[in-house]
Amino acid sequence: MAIEQAVTTKETPISPAVFKQSMRRLAGGVCILASARDGERHGLTMTAVCSLTLDPPMLIACVNRDAGAYETMRSTRRVSVNLLGSDQIELAELFSSSTIKGTERFERAEWVEMASGVPALTGALAVLDCQIVEEKAVGQHSVLFCEVKAARLEDQKDPLVHFDRQFCGLLPVA
Amino acid sequence: MAIEQAVTTKETPISPAVFKQSMRRLAGGVCILASARDGERHGLTMTAVCSLTLDPPMLIACVNRDAGAYETMRSTRRVSVNLLGSDQIELAELFSSSTIKGTERFERAEWVEMASGVPALTGALAVLDCQIVEEKAVGQHSVLFCEVKAARLEDQKDPLVHFDRQFCGLLPVA
Repeated sequence: MAIEQAVTTKETPISPAVFKQSMRRLAGGVCILASARDGERHGLTMTAVCSLTLDPPMLIACVNRDAGAYETMRSTRRVSVNLLGSDQIELAELFSSSTIKGTERFERAEWVEMASGVPALTGALAVLDCQIVEEKAVGQHSVLFCEVKAARLEDQKDPLVHFDRQFCGLLPVA
Repeated sequence: MAIEQAVTTKETPISPAVFKQSMRRLAGGVCILASARDGERHGLTMTAVCSLTLDPPMLIACVNRDAGAYETMRSTRRVSVNLLGSDQIELAELFSSSTIKGTERFERAEWVEMASGVPALTGALAVLDCQIVEEKAVGQHSVLFCEVKAARLEDQKDPLVHFDRQFCGLLPVA
């Protein structure tokens, strides 16, 4: 039955709707990207982060340039990538809120300042302090090429994952 | 208790070991990237894929240029991104095998050919047929900027996720 369904699947030309529907099926670990300048903190929730190279230690992040945090990231060339645990859904929602913005988002959890000045979430799975070494604009988004300079590793726990517009935890499979 | 541990977490300068350990904590949806030329198929398992822009529909993928599939992707400028379901662990393992390479990897599941010639896995969560419009080399890896041209969407099912060197399924959280 499953095989018959699969065989009849049609190829469709791409459209914004089909692209959105497809990308919702790409599961992603949930992160908060955060930066600071002149005592003002900014941050946003996203999943578009991936590891790039081990030497030098680099990752990339795709950010909408309309995001409130983008200008601070761009001007300081510094950002923290905070990997969230499955117990941090409220924070993921807060940092994607349409009503609560800027420094106010940082008031509901404990954030510390890393040596470089970027905010680090205590209780995250890991926090990576990154220097943005290059930026490539594509449409309304920018790909940030980030060299990782320092890290905070917390106790191991389950990650928060986003899939099909829902937050999920993980289930080990055989 | 959890909070006390968090507060005492130390910031450490980055090293390859600390970077690896951190990146293992970034959960990622598992994909097979596949391409074909002159009847030869190549593909590899990876998680370093993310959505970039909706208009045009673009995604990026970070590929090690040592990968057997890289040369075919580079020369054809075409690749399929196959999003795996949680029932497809064996395929994820097969396409990252150190002993089984090239076209032989495609013999254990049903793959069809998309209009552009790229292989599409039947029974994947979704398959995106991509044109590589730009490539940026960073160290041993290349970031492929992919414009999505067509898609195959199959029935909804749970995705396969990779976290901390393990394959996992998803667990809805409140």
